[in-house]
Amino acid sequence: MSQRAFLQEVVTRDGFQSLDRFIATDDKVALIDELGRTGLAKIEATSFVSPKAIPNLADADEVMRRITRVEGVEYAVLVPNLRGLDRALPHRPHEVNFAMSASATHNRMNLRMTREESFAQLGEVVRGAAGTGVRVQVSLSTSFGCPVEGRVPEEVVFDWVARFVQLGVDGITLADTTGMANPLQVGGMTVRYLAQPGVPPLTLHFHNTRGMGLANVCAGLAAGARRFDASLGGLGGCPYAPGASGNICTEDTALMLREMGWDTGVDLRALLAASRRLPTLVGKEMPGQVAKAGLTEDLHPEK
Amino acid sequence: MSQRAFLQEVVTRDGFQSLDRFIATDDKVALIDELGRTGLAKIEATSFVSPKAIPNLADADEVMRRITRVEGVEYAVLVPNLRGLDRALPHRPHEVNFAMSASATHNRMNLRMTREESFAQLGEVVRGAAGTGVRVQVSLSTSFGCPVEGRVPEEVVFDWVARFVQLGVDGITLADTTGMANPLQVGGMTVRYLAQPGVPPLTLHFHNTRGMGLANVCAGLAAGARRFDASLGGLGGCPYAPGASGNICTEDTALMLREMGWDTGVDLRALLAASRRLPTLVGKEMPGQVAKAGLTEDLHPEK
Repeated sequence: MSQRAFLQEVVTRDGFQSLDRFIATDDKVALIDELGRTGLAKIEATSFVSPKAIPNLADADEVMRRITRVEGVEYAVLVPNLRGLDRALPHRPHEVNFAMSASATHNRMNLRMTREESFAQLGEVVRGAAGTGVRVQVSLSTSFGCPVEGRVPEEVVFDWVARFVQLGVDGITLADTTGMANPLQVGGMTVRYLAQPGVPPLTLHFHNTRGMGLANVCAGLAAGARRFDASLGGLGGCPYAPGASGNICTEDTALMLREMGWDTGVDLRALLAASRRLPTLVGKEMPGQVAKAGLTEDLHPEK
Repeated sequence: MSQRAFLQEVVTRDGFQSLDRFIATDDKVALIDELGRTGLAKIEATSFVSPKAIPNLADADEVMRRITRVEGVEYAVLVPNLRGLDRALPHRPHEVNFAMSASATHNRMNLRMTREESFAQLGEVVRGAAGTGVRVQVSLSTSFGCPVEGRVPEEVVFDWVARFVQLGVDGITLADTTGMANPLQVGGMTVRYLAQPGVPPLTLHFHNTRGMGLANVCAGLAAGARRFDASLGGLGGCPYAPGASGNICTEDTALMLREMGWDTGVDLRALLAASRRLPTLVGKEMPGQVAKAGLTEDLHPEK
């Protein structure tokens, strides 16, 4: 029996938010519904941020109202604060995801707040979600390095982890927001995370900005991580490196895991079918490889 | 002290051979000379195949005559047979590289011969090179899977390895010609290779066709492999998957190895400078990521 690994899809939130075009609500709903039928463990569907901040996701309420939930799939939404939580809760997501950064500068640039201010807002979200049955996940951006500050000391990351644990969050994501992580570091930090007392389930969120995305997944797996964020087709660029890749690609990750004997529960054919429609939907080529190359069992005639 | 890993550059041979344009001899010589100064362990400079078979490398003699060899860098050339060896020997390469396939069908498609016919030609090359001081490397294509036959049994690969050892080759490359390898398989086959009696140094040759290239490098390293082929910018496509990546990217591999504490001897800045001129030289975008994203120490201003 193969061991279970969990793929958590972020394309309609992380992938769509930074596109230069608005994806029609109908198309978002159709894609989320299609992804729900592929066997993914979790789908981060949208974000309850201010429509002014991220116009591409201004239809979060309508999206959450219209999607057809698939039994066994968890639906998450991003919330930036208590106000976002209040908008999200009536939609009964399984989880709200709150993001802050390990590095002061990235937190300030990305969220226009100090980390302490962000942490205070996380506290409000945790208290606001208490008793609702909705889980709170916190994503710690720049956990493996900051594009402005550079190296982020592990101590800083694990100090935040300890404070998250104390606050009672239900899950923690260590995020390599701009592709600075390497497999040695990922292995070490995963082992260290899992050795902390009382930590909730760990998610690893990698970008393929420097080509190491799947190598980092392998290192995380080997060290005991079981949950990985990924984006269909690898959609989602890097604001610091035009032309570079963003999120690791869901179907590439799913194929690698399958080839290594992990059970992700994912129907790779269905995932590929969805991915192959993305270039038309978003108007650009995707960095994912398997959608172009096919599965390893997609053989060719002798010629 | 960090451990040494060896990067072997194939861009001017494997990368250039399938381009739809002829790269001027001047440009080839300039690139090989530039690469020689980056600290790469080995450069496969060109191929002494029939100019009719591969017109892009018809200038192999001139290239080998005109390059300026850098002390400490090994220069290799591909030879398909004894005739190629005879053309290559006057140029005094450190090594000739001979390719055949683990799967019968790929050998027939790619080389228009049976594997036994290829092996007989390898024997001629080994005997022809004996006493010349020129090493013979054999590359076993489709060692991790065949795009036509699918799975290639490990037994088949290791039967060929045993015959190569018996023949007295100086090095063996297990090549994942069309990106079918996965990290679990790579780890297992590397361990098994290194456990064979009397085997010469192992090179692993990976393609990133399904996104697992660098994950496979990590798996190979962890299992004891130290030599890896790679192509500047990731140049070199996959004939079975238009648009998909070919060879793993040299600078992406070099950065990952450096970040993990391996000493490759490579000057990453010099490698990046060379890679960033490739799109102009070959007329297309490269799949490599680090040339777009920069090194991990290439930080950004706060904005």
